[in-house]
Amino acid sequence: MSFVKNAWYVAGWSRDFGDDLKKVTIVDQNMVMYRTSEGNVVALEDRCPHRLLPLSKGRRIGDDVQCGYHGMTFDCSGKCVRIPGQDNLPASAYVEAFAVEERHGIVWVFMGDQSKADTDKIFDMAEFSDPNWHAHHGDALHLKSNYLNVAENLVDPAHVSFVHPTTLGNASSENVPVHVQTKGDPIIAWRWIRNAPPIGFFQNFGGFSGNVDRWHYYNLHLPSTAVIDFGSAATEDNLEEENRNDGVRIFALHFVTPVNEQYTIDHWMHLRNTAIEDEAASEQMDAMFRTAFAEDKEVLEAVQEEENRPQKRRPIRIAIDKGPNIYRRRIRELIEAEQTEDLGEPEKPTFVHHD
Amino acid sequence: MSFVKNAWYVAGWSRDFGDDLKKVTIVDQNMVMYRTSEGNVVALEDRCPHRLLPLSKGRRIGDDVQCGYHGMTFDCSGKCVRIPGQDNLPASAYVEAFAVEERHGIVWVFMGDQSKADTDKIFDMAEFSDPNWHAHHGDALHLKSNYLNVAENLVDPAHVSFVHPTTLGNASSENVPVHVQTKGDPIIAWRWIRNAPPIGFFQNFGGFSGNVDRWHYYNLHLPSTAVIDFGSAATEDNLEEENRNDGVRIFALHFVTPVNEQYTIDHWMHLRNTAIEDEAASEQMDAMFRTAFAEDKEVLEAVQEEENRPQKRRPIRIAIDKGPNIYRRRIRELIEAEQTEDLGEPEKPTFVHHD
Amino acid sequence: MSFVKNAWYVAGWSRDFGDDLKKVTIVDQNMVMYRTSEGNVVALEDRCPHRLLPLSKGRRIGDDVQCGYHGMTFDCSGKCVRIPGQDNLPASAYVEAFAVEERHGIVWVFMGDQSKADTDKIFDMAEFSDPNWHAHHGDALHLKSNYLNVAENLVDPAHVSFVHPTTLGNASSENVPVHVQTKGDPIIAWRWIRNAPPIGFFQNFGGFSGNVDRWHYYNLHLPSTAVIDFGSAATEDNLEEENRNDGVRIFALHFVTPVNEQYTIDHWMHLRNTAIEDEAASEQMDAMFRTAFAEDKEVLEAVQEEENRPQKRRPIRIAIDKGPNIYRRRIRELIEAEQTEDLGEPEKPTFVHHD
Repeated sequence: MSFVKNAWYVAGWSRDFGDDLKKVTIVDQNMVMYRTSEGNVVALEDRCPHRLLPLSKGRRIGDDVQCGYHGMTFDCSGKCVRIPGQDNLPASAYVEAFAVEERHGIVWVFMGDQSKADTDKIFDMAEFSDPNWHAHHGDALHLKSNYLNVAENLVDPAHVSFVHPTTLGNASSENVPVHVQTKGDPIIAWRWIRNAPPIGFFQNFGGFSGNVDRWHYYNLHLPSTAVIDFGSAATEDNLEEENRNDGVRIFALHFVTPVNEQYTIDHWMHLRNTAIEDEAASEQMDAMFRTAFAEDKEVLEAVQEEENRPQKRRPIRIAIDKGPNIYRRRIRELIEAEQTEDLGEPEKPTFVHHD
Repeated sequence: MSFVKNAWYVAGWSRDFGDDLKKVTIVDQNMVMYRTSEGNVVALEDRCPHRLLPLSKGRRIGDDVQCGYHGMTFDCSGKCVRIPGQDNLPASAYVEAFAVEERHGIVWVFMGDQSKADTDKIFDMAEFSDPNWHAHHGDALHLKSNYLNVAENLVDPAHVSFVHPTTLGNASSENVPVHVQTKGDPIIAWRWIRNAPPIGFFQNFGGFSGNVDRWHYYNLHLPSTAVIDFGSAATEDNLEEENRNDGVRIFALHFVTPVNEQYTIDHWMHLRNTAIEDEAASEQMDAMFRTAFAEDKEVLEAVQEEENRPQKRRPIRIAIDKGPNIYRRRIRELIEAEQTEDLGEPEKPTFVHHD
Repeated sequence: MSFVKNAWYVAGWSRDFGDDLKKVTIVDQNMVMYRTSEGNVVALEDRCPHRLLPLSKGRRIGDDVQCGYHGMTFDCSGKCVRIPGQDNLPASAYVEAFAVEERHGIVWVFMGDQSKADTDKIFDMAEFSDPNWHAHHGDALHLKSNYLNVAENLVDPAHVSFVHPTTLGNASSENVPVHVQTKGDPIIAWRWIRNAPPIGFFQNFGGFSGNVDRWHYYNLHLPSTAVIDFGSAATEDNLEEENRNDGVRIFALHFVTPVNEQYTIDHWMHLRNTAIEDEAASEQMDAMFRTAFAEDKEVLEAVQEEENRPQKRRPIRIAIDKGPNIYRRRIRELIEAEQTEDLGEPEKPTFVHHD
């Protein structure tokens, strides 16, 4: 297995990048990243082509990076601009440069064929720019687990009752069926739990006194950005599906970045339609998310350990796996398409299909 | 190399198993173990067949175990009794179950073909049930070494003079020849050291003022249970071999459990015909055993490290190796017999042997 | 890749070896080393041929070594002189012995074919025995990096400006060309930086008020002993190359010992023509060397980590690499010569060369 490379991945929040040289690894590619004097974030291959020292061990010379071993210096485009001790600067003396785009406090890097780095394909939501919504950037959760394990967990409402019984789920939801929409991007899995006690999250943060109608919509955008649309409304309000904005509504965003086959970083944040500009509420929600995501981390790292052990039997798939199954199939297809070259229809095909 | 699987191995003492889910690994098989409401100890494969989470990360639901990821639930026989979100429970939704037997405070598990789990084959000794003998359960010694290294050390009286000079051996025994009985099970290696100062062990714990006759009988039962029968009597008593019960006699028992190819747990305990019900004496003996076994551990882990390095020469075998050599050959034969299927005599054999 | 074995390597300083059994590893060969009652240092294979326990886990019996498992005992030549429990001592019961030579407080071991251990080939310098020079033995620097990375750094004057800007180099030297003498042994790379401020080292330790002429001669003797001849003289003295002894001159010696493919020890010391018998000056110089060599260590370990990762492109070589390139080629030739057998000119050659 491998990674989808022709994709934008999140390298961090805007606040994570400054003058310093920072080492960042995505899809097993080490990069040195920094912010130029003009404020742009740069991402270069983190390995001098001479004696392989990571450039992140070197130093800034203006907006260039100088290798810490023999002083070879590269500009923001990766071009070598100086080799101490010689005048000629051959074209092969370069480092790869990766397209970077910064939006809504989020830094994205395009990892594959740079000619395909189309910024229109970067994930976006209208709520980021809507004053009725509050955006709050959370943490970077590090997991010793493959990114597919992490991402499939985000199109899997069924785990919530068992992994997060005190925060995001409770027993009322254990047997509520999951709906799945597997055509198109995102893949969506959702369910409504009607007329049940509020979960821990909305007990603390919703002011409900009686039972509520609660929804969870798991939207998983390829390759690995998840939007968990969840919220509650008093059961007596009889909320329609399309009027979720009238309830207390939260979008929990997860930008799942593959570091290597066994390591993943999940940058998580949320958007909410309540408690705008209320930093105490943000802190309270972060605390609850941290509790819940630590529960995921324990499960997902244990799963990875078992996947690394010898397999004696074929694992089984069950009804609730529809979303994860489709997700893994789509990823396999994307990787297959990237790693092969389709020469298209020959003029005289040998075989002719009739459906 | 590998393991003998059609055998009972010790998973721990009775006191180690209660309501909690406990992870135990034997012959590279992870198991979740717990004691049911009726008091029986259960051992199930520690991996949910769905997404592979170890069941030991889940929780007890009565006498069943519920997976901590999506709530699949298994009973004591390993059968799946619940899959949240669906009604059908296919036969393939099971985990393996392993036979468990508890005797004299010791919990045994049968690791191989469960149809061969014959409890009559569990190691036993009459002294466990004899009021003239006191049984005391010791520790679980963890060793980063293959179980064959650990077990062969227990049919090897010759190492005692060099590895345990202050506790179990001393210089008087360095050149005393070892007798070996290699037919039948157990393999036995023994020697008597006549008319010599008592070893540290019996200086503390025997009340001898002058020289003693000291014996060591190393009984190694296949695959890896050792009974070290050792003791001393005043030299003037002129003790006969068959009258060892008239001296101060101790059976040091070692239940050697292979965890994986590089890791072994030795559960050790003793039976003694003196200081019955004297807990202070038990503590004192444990302290001495711990000193001695820490010496073994250092040697056996260093040997394993060398076995893991490239080998330049064939190792040599010497006179004192007779017991260990026979032991290793027997183990190889047991593994060979388990891993092959003997179809027996054909009706018309191609080759006819004449001896 | 591998190691040059028919060579003397430094195992440590004389002060490192006493009565105790010390484990030393050179070119992946574990040895037990100790000083006999007559004062000679001995190096034996650190593995008992019986059950492989390292002899360094055993004990001294006079000038012999007794294995800590079953008491097999070896004399200084590696011959077995005792097997407890048996009388015959077969010839195959031996451990390898390695030639050791001690000179000027340095302990050398010959690692390859012992019939080729010619002490005339041990590195030496007349200044060791010259009362106008002071020898001071420094530390053993441990590096998680291949020895070739460590040694090539010692025939590479160009790195000094970038890796050691506060101690051994400064910006004045960044663009000064390097001269290289690649015929014969040692390989020499050198440069003079004329009429520049003194580097940190000679600011502390030379008493120069104005600009100086500074030299660096990197002499790398095969397989891996480096002599860095460096010093300064006031620019107005107009020092000739051959009169370096009239300036403040230091020989920094590095004895680079391969431990294994990923681990190297650099025993470093210096000889100086100033501050004779001044221990405070030695301490001051050690402190500066430690700062500088910690900088090398960080670079060389990071380079090794990158070499261990998958390689996507061929690394590039630049003008300053002449010394390192020749050095690596020579090492490859030495290893090739050791690992093959040249049968020489046949009587009737099939091919005849005409140059």
